[in-house]
Amino acid sequence: MVQSYELFCWPTIQGRGEFVRLALEEAGVPYVDVAREPGGMARMMAAMDGADHPSFAPPFLKAGDLLVGQTANILLFLGQRHGLAPDDEQGRLWVNQIQLTIADLVAEAHDTHHPIATSLYYEDQRPEAKRRAADFIETRIPKFFDWFEGLLGRPEPKDYLLGDQVSYADLSLFQLVEGLRYAFPKALARIDASYPLLAALHDRVAQRPRIAAYLKSERRLPFNEEGIFRHYKELDNPINPSGEQSQD
Amino acid sequence: MVQSYELFCWPTIQGRGEFVRLALEEAGVPYVDVAREPGGMARMMAAMDGADHPSFAPPFLKAGDLLVGQTANILLFLGQRHGLAPDDEQGRLWVNQIQLTIADLVAEAHDTHHPIATSLYYEDQRPEAKRRAADFIETRIPKFFDWFEGLLGRPEPKDYLLGDQVSYADLSLFQLVEGLRYAFPKALARIDASYPLLAALHDRVAQRPRIAAYLKSERRLPFNEEGIFRHYKELDNPINPSGEQSQD
Repeated sequence: MVQSYELFCWPTIQGRGEFVRLALEEAGVPYVDVAREPGGMARMMAAMDGADHPSFAPPFLKAGDLLVGQTANILLFLGQRHGLAPDDEQGRLWVNQIQLTIADLVAEAHDTHHPIATSLYYEDQRPEAKRRAADFIETRIPKFFDWFEGLLGRPEPKDYLLGDQVSYADLSLFQLVEGLRYAFPKALARIDASYPLLAALHDRVAQRPRIAAYLKSERRLPFNEEGIFRHYKELDNPINPSGEQSQD
Repeated sequence: MVQSYELFCWPTIQGRGEFVRLALEEAGVPYVDVAREPGGMARMMAAMDGADHPSFAPPFLKAGDLLVGQTANILLFLGQRHGLAPDDEQGRLWVNQIQLTIADLVAEAHDTHHPIATSLYYEDQRPEAKRRAADFIETRIPKFFDWFEGLLGRPEPKDYLLGDQVSYADLSLFQLVEGLRYAFPKALARIDASYPLLAALHDRVAQRPRIAAYLKSERRLPFNEEGIFRHYKELDNPINPSGEQSQD
């Protein structure tokens, strides 16, 4: 079952590939991060265009003859192969459902700095970004976090989304919290105490031996202002108690 | 295997539930569109909050004891049960990958009229919507349509994405084209000729007996300005040959 995978994703950002890296690291399976190798970008672009099953965009994963694209789909595949999702249909669908909901919030996090067009620079859509980020912080993060916190507390507080057993959705939830704390430190500091189970899950994942080793390694790229989660001070706009946004 | 499903989605719009309806209709299986029944909205809100596997949002599907949320996840489940996806792992993953890519464009179509916040009215984000819609028409639709057209032509022109066999991704692609033509009729009329295989797929799906019967029935809600695909004249902004947007 264990084989060397080839992961294709942008080489200078964590990006959506990071959700796949975390699953590969937790599974302890060998993989090559192709685009970070010499000549890797050219190989990635060729693999994206030329295959029978082309991908619309990175990340995608090559497993022998199989080529799998779309983050949640790659995780569905890896989860089943490497014990990061339940064996039964109901459990697999449930983890996929959580993952797709995480993906929705990830896409919204991206759009806080690119509300108008991915093809434009952030600087060309900054006023719109400030409006979108304020709503994201005020209404979207809490709505999603309420849901995640509810899952972790139902029917009683759990170590992981499924109970005792870690799944790829737990790893993704760690990355989501990590990314949002990086992008919006003031806003997250303000609400973190309201989500103790989510914060505990984040810490529990970070302390898993393989994840902890990975996070300290050079394989883990740092966050930066070209990725999905970006820190722009003017977007980290805490809401004051009256519900009005601070003016900065 | 065939049982009566309960579909939970917003009762006055096609919404994301429409992708599920099309699969159920093509499969020819009985289902109840719960929120359109008397008392159905209350039942939907209770089912969303109260279950072991709550959904973040509609649509979700109840199949006996199984509750499945997230559109692509529901289709993964139905596709496997009702022959709307291949039996083998590789084929199932491939259809899921296409579906998730369709879902990405659907989300972007939604954000053309809500680039700042879902919690605000369109009228409160109209200038931003005009900017986002112009980019959506100019760069995003062509990028996705190029990819879909490529799939349909590879290695030679095919009736459906997988060849002869219809899958739920074909039904979703029909709905995507139908929705974009409704929302942006001028823009789509301008580019439609560049995507003959996609246009042919759209027509082929529309003519399938069960789909054709469904589209004529009262079960098919009309498009409207509360759904994902909305027609606002000022957003249907064709690009003139010089690449500049028309002023209207």
